Amino acid sequence: MVYITRREQFNAAHKLYNPKWSEERNNEIFGKCANPNWHGHNYHLYVTVKGEINPDTGYSVNLKELSAIIRKHIIDKLDHKNLNLDVDFIKNVMPSTENVAIAIWNELTPHIGTLGCQLHCIKLYETENNYVEYFGG
Amino acid sequence: MVYITRREQFNAAHKLYNPKWSEERNNEIFGKCANPNWHGHNYHLYVTVKGEINPDTGYSVNLKELSAIIRKHIIDKLDHKNLNLDVDFIKNVMPSTENVAIAIWNELTPHIGTLGCQLHCIKLYETENNYVEYFGG
Amino acid sequence: MVYITRREQFNAAHKLYNPKWSEERNNEIFGKCANPNWHGHNYHLYVTVKGEINPDTGYSVNLKELSAIIRKHIIDKLDHKNLNLDVDFIKNVMPSTENVAIAIWNELTPHIGTLGCQLHCIKLYETENNYVEYFGG
Amino acid sequence: MVYITRREQFNAAHKLYNPKWSEERNNEIFGKCANPNWHGHNYHLYVTVKGEINPDTGYSVNLKELSAIIRKHIIDKLDHKNLNLDVDFIKNVMPSTENVAIAIWNELTPHIGTLGCQLHCIKLYETENNYVEYFGG
Amino acid sequence: MVYITRREQFNAAHKLYNPKWSEERNNEIFGKCANPNWHGHNYHLYVTVKGEINPDTGYSVNLKELSAIIRKHIIDKLDHKNLNLDVDFIKNVMPSTENVAIAIWNELTPHIGTLGCQLHCIKLYETENNYVEYFGG
Amino acid sequence: MVYITRREQFNAAHKLYNPKWSEERNNEIFGKCANPNWHGHNYHLYVTVKGEINPDTGYSVNLKELSAIIRKHIIDKLDHKNLNLDVDFIKNVMPSTENVAIAIWNELTPHIGTLGCQLHCIKLYETENNYVEYFGG
Repeated sequence: MVYITRREQFNAAHKLYNPKWSEERNNEIFGKCANPNWHGHNYHLYVTVKGEINPDTGYSVNLKELSAIIRKHIIDKLDHKNLNLDVDFIKNVMPSTENVAIAIWNELTPHIGTLGCQLHCIKLYETENNYVEYFGG
Repeated sequence: MVYITRREQFNAAHKLYNPKWSEERNNEIFGKCANPNWHGHNYHLYVTVKGEINPDTGYSVNLKELSAIIRKHIIDKLDHKNLNLDVDFIKNVMPSTENVAIAIWNELTPHIGTLGCQLHCIKLYETENNYVEYFGG
Repeated sequence: MVYITRREQFNAAHKLYNPKWSEERNNEIFGKCANPNWHGHNYHLYVTVKGEINPDTGYSVNLKELSAIIRKHIIDKLDHKNLNLDVDFIKNVMPSTENVAIAIWNELTPHIGTLGCQLHCIKLYETENNYVEYFGG
Repeated sequence: MVYITRREQFNAAHKLYNPKWSEERNNEIFGKCANPNWHGHNYHLYVTVKGEINPDTGYSVNLKELSAIIRKHIIDKLDHKNLNLDVDFIKNVMPSTENVAIAIWNELTPHIGTLGCQLHCIKLYETENNYVEYFGG
Repeated sequence: MVYITRREQFNAAHKLYNPKWSEERNNEIFGKCANPNWHGHNYHLYVTVKGEINPDTGYSVNLKELSAIIRKHIIDKLDHKNLNLDVDFIKNVMPSTENVAIAIWNELTPHIGTLGCQLHCIKLYETENNYVEYFGG
Repeated sequence: MVYITRREQFNAAHKLYNPKWSEERNNEIFGKCANPNWHGHNYHLYVTVKGEINPDTGYSVNLKELSAIIRKHIIDKLDHKNLNLDVDFIKNVMPSTENVAIAIWNELTPHIGTLGCQLHCIKLYETENNYVEYFGG
């Protein structure tokens, strides 16, 4: 069993703002992240899958296929988008790094299975100083 | 004469869209960058100044003071902001990396002079694959 | 359960020297690290905590609060200091990367609990080629 | 118990080509990696070992000794070599990142034991976008 | 006048070997780089162009177009190739980083002109420790 | 004429303290850098030389020779040292990044000439956020 990781990237806008709260409370909790006109990030996404090695290829997964799946189901929907407004699978949750990572996990899981391996970890960098890891349920 | 560089960062939203053009032409020229709901980046800003060394300090500039000036005049106005809507000194221009770099140069120049050195270069990374350098007029 | 990591940095001096040993043995074991006049590093500290997501914020932990705790209890005590001489919680141990990582774990643990999450890992880079991870006792 | 990691590097040529297959099938599966005249990479190798701390040194392992073992048994045999042709311990397997990582694990394991610690992980970057981790059988 | 830089990458094999010399002299001058079975690198290529800003776009050059030209004329010909054997425009010269950088300059120059800007610098990293810059003639 | 750069590294302790000044003034100007017990950094040194290409080698300079000269004359004297106390060629100046870069320039210049090329730039990173460039005279 080996673990292999593919890095992809997307650039997106978002804000963190809870409409059930007053503006004061939003600013107290979210600070600059609550700016009504949005801000944004270069997100770096690391998708780790685990599997057995195919002796004919030496591959646990074909990274061209893994990359194609990540781009079709995640990057094309998040890149140069607004995470609060534009993404069908990030509705009704706050687009924090935690929630975006979990949403990516849920979206990718069924597709990874078709590659003969298993999703192990979603690691999502919001900045060079902050990242989230999610290993499933 | 030595050159010293300070790196600062800001996370901002923007879009590239020319209101004088049709939507088709905007999409043709700006592609994903024209998304109406914005996108964003982690911008890395490198400010290079040149000066003579003060023999009492060994400094060409005190980086604490340089950093304070960059933060007050640039970072506090750009970080977690929308470059199209929120920034007084980036009005009436397209917020491309080129124009943002030039606007930062113009904004910083008078303040750098108070430190006894001279602004040499603004280098602005939009992503790890793209950056702009501006050396003035 | 998600894992979130915050990076902070400190620049410090230290040396590795065992006073119970001869100078020859110190040089044999510690090499250049035993230089009596000290040397130093830019340490990169990654603090990983794990927790449940608060549905009102989307946060497992508020990174502003996590960063403030790391800065107050760790960075302010280690940055621009001598790890052998200046730090109350690194007394009586050799300031190797291993021992500094464990000391940081012990110092941070009670404070992380006040944030509603749990310390998972201290990862400490001494150089770009060397790092230590500690997951607790 | 702490985990300590040493990074080393090697620059090597390889190709991925299965001689049991037609050229069409090789190109379909391996794409550009099947180029008959080879291609190459700057591989970054992270070797993680775990152990108890020696109170006399503060070390779980002496990194000079760990580095010397990695260089003697791995880097000297892989650096500026052809992974398909030149390496005694990567014969009869496809030199994919997965298989190279496992071969390094097998080659290093007996030598790590002589240092009083235990091999925990081989992490091998083929590019900044792809890496493999192997934790043993 | 602003300077804008696009980073692209290619992974290639090569060797440095002068057929006019004895094997001893090749080994003395080129060392491990003379390995007859090749070795390879992940090359990072930075292409810097300079130009005036178009007020309708805020662009000095459209990076999509610049990237497309670099990929068509350089990356597609170098990526996953052997620099000694496979590249039409690197014939009859030693494929050192210097000569590859100059060959890229010569190959790109006529195409950059079609974008309305001017090639300023080719910066080519062979490893994280070595890079070459060429500014033309 | 091409420019080629070699990166080397050293880890050193220093402090910034002017003995002609009061402690108050030292703290005001140098802040944490004046800590009497020293602090330290991982310095990254980039040495750029320029020269013509030798058609027999494709080299403007043999990087093995350049690296050997940098290591002998600079790294061996600065690595794991105290820049205020241990270095013969950094006496009588404040060991600021500026002054260390200039001292390295002066120390290297005569040796670079023996390689048939010319020293162009010393670039010295003190942290990932601060660096100095010196081009001589």
